[in-house]
Amino acid sequence: MPHLHDRAAAQESVFARMSRLAAQRGAVNLGQGFPSAPPPAFLLDAARGALGRADQYAPPAGLPALRDALGADLGVDGADVTVTCGATEALHLVALALLGPGDEALMLEPVFDVYLPQVALAGARGVTVPMTLDPARGWQFDLGALAAAVTPRTRALLLNSPFNPTGTVFTDEELAGIVALARRHDLWIVSDEVYDELYFGARPTPLRTLAPERTFTVGSAGKRLEATGWRVGWIAAPPGLTPGVLGLRQITSFCAPAPLQAAVAAALPVARAAGFYEELRQGYAGRMQRLAAGLRELGAAVFEPRGTYFLTALHPSWTAETLVQEAGVAVIPGEAFYAQQAAPAGLTRWAFCKSDAEIDLALTRLRAS
Amino acid sequence: MPHLHDRAAAQESVFARMSRLAAQRGAVNLGQGFPSAPPPAFLLDAARGALGRADQYAPPAGLPALRDALGADLGVDGADVTVTCGATEALHLVALALLGPGDEALMLEPVFDVYLPQVALAGARGVTVPMTLDPARGWQFDLGALAAAVTPRTRALLLNSPFNPTGTVFTDEELAGIVALARRHDLWIVSDEVYDELYFGARPTPLRTLAPERTFTVGSAGKRLEATGWRVGWIAAPPGLTPGVLGLRQITSFCAPAPLQAAVAAALPVARAAGFYEELRQGYAGRMQRLAAGLRELGAAVFEPRGTYFLTALHPSWTAETLVQEAGVAVIPGEAFYAQQAAPAGLTRWAFCKSDAEIDLALTRLRAS
Repeated sequence: MPHLHDRAAAQESVFARMSRLAAQRGAVNLGQGFPSAPPPAFLLDAARGALGRADQYAPPAGLPALRDALGADLGVDGADVTVTCGATEALHLVALALLGPGDEALMLEPVFDVYLPQVALAGARGVTVPMTLDPARGWQFDLGALAAAVTPRTRALLLNSPFNPTGTVFTDEELAGIVALARRHDLWIVSDEVYDELYFGARPTPLRTLAPERTFTVGSAGKRLEATGWRVGWIAAPPGLTPGVLGLRQITSFCAPAPLQAAVAAALPVARAAGFYEELRQGYAGRMQRLAAGLRELGAAVFEPRGTYFLTALHPSWTAETLVQEAGVAVIPGEAFYAQQAAPAGLTRWAFCKSDAEIDLALTRLRAS
Repeated sequence: MPHLHDRAAAQESVFARMSRLAAQRGAVNLGQGFPSAPPPAFLLDAARGALGRADQYAPPAGLPALRDALGADLGVDGADVTVTCGATEALHLVALALLGPGDEALMLEPVFDVYLPQVALAGARGVTVPMTLDPARGWQFDLGALAAAVTPRTRALLLNSPFNPTGTVFTDEELAGIVALARRHDLWIVSDEVYDELYFGARPTPLRTLAPERTFTVGSAGKRLEATGWRVGWIAAPPGLTPGVLGLRQITSFCAPAPLQAAVAAALPVARAAGFYEELRQGYAGRMQRLAAGLRELGAAVFEPRGTYFLTALHPSWTAETLVQEAGVAVIPGEAFYAQQAAPAGLTRWAFCKSDAEIDLALTRLRAS
């Protein structure tokens, strides 16, 4: 028999794996980042209405109504928006559109697990720069270290703010430094902003507003509207560059799910007008505090996020493996976010996009174990 | 500013382009292959029921219920099935999993427009072997020509049966020859069977039943269940090879739309038990005859398909461009399916997955133009 290509390495995503273990073990799943509540009624109703009316191919760039709604929501031209099968495909496409053999993409580590293999699939090399974890001050971003990692081969900075798993939201000063660096070396900026509406302090500044000419913003209806399985994501490209993305987009999956696109198009202005995101943040802030307080009582050092629905914790005797098997609580091991740097010992990531009852049950189990 | 990578060439798919022109011109759209009727009620009802219950991430391989339903439907183990964002992503993934630099994939021409760029994206070279169009006998497959095109670099045969756009369904004798060729040279077989339930004579034999050890079958709920915009496709891999596909599947789009997967899982056994596909074929056979008769009256040579919902026609004075602009009828130009061979002059592809009224309106317009 012939062999599969080398790139077809059999590696199960740690997120999928922990969800599988959680289900097998009957564990509370504070691992994979999906809400345990259903999406809001205004989204579900819109989808029920779209079924039977928007079931055939959408244009590869997306339904015009959704591109327009996203343009209005993001403050860009709808013609610069490409709708994708989730943010994962958006990141895959941007990597293919920007990077090739000989290129390097800089990113921070801990790093979301798809970035490095996506960059490698584009033929390029991902290079990570460490965020440091100071037990007293939390996660620290070092612009100087990022600047020092730029080489003549660097083509793109791939950033995530709010940042999964650290919860970092870059300050305007940090963003200005990042933009200056990108301009100095003529780099693309890929800004993964799937958690753009999930923040607990000042509203994050979108990088595209600071460097519109070079920033590809990646976003996700699944994260915003609590429907992670819907696979409606997007790319907002610099003005005029969308045709280059579309040529590839047609061969990766042709188009995103049409009835769900129609539903998201209808729901985006409703979510904004009805204060849905404010409610979401308020609810998450409460659950974050609930989980953080409980973990601290158990002796963990907890790093509260300024955005995302994850917190990170350090505890010398916790590993994701023993927590799921022995305590019946699934979390993501810190190692899942480390490829080139060493993971801090005892680091775990906890999702609080779950119900109070689930958080309480997890804490009860941890106390008992 | 930096440049996009060379592979980000701005090329609009001819299918998307003709649909866009059809909408702008108010043309009858017999171009892009999507039904003008909505999907069946049993599918829509299943989707309405899944919303609010299956909205979060599915496992990358697919919802277990859908993998099981596909296993039962296709006669394979559900563990060998990967659910994808439509058949386009399935083909993208299979190319990535099987092919790399230095490899060649053989396919027939006319060729569906995504095959060659997908093979190129995997770093390999697509090589086409011509189907010939005999005005009296229709489209002819030449196994000897396929065999003669095999080189030491050939890694895979990429076939499509029922075949878009020719309508060819390979005979069992032809399939046996293809399998013998693949075994002789130890080649993978990628069998695009998205039209597996759309045939007008004997039921097509799935290639996986003849060469289970080397055949990747690609299928599509959108084509089977008249919902081309739903983006639920699949790969049935040779036993045991799915983990290699899954590593890539996690980074191309992570998972397919979960509520639509749940709906397809519920609908597949209903479609089979209720005789949905028989009804579909019967309806299509009638519309194919209606369109074919009308086109012949207009002086075209029409090649009736043995499968798919397309027919091909030759008419010396028809081009897709003039038909859409002057007659208000959108079709796909033969050239859309030719990259390495010369397209037969005057060749067009006509979709008959449309209503009788649309087909009649198209014929009326053609008569008047």
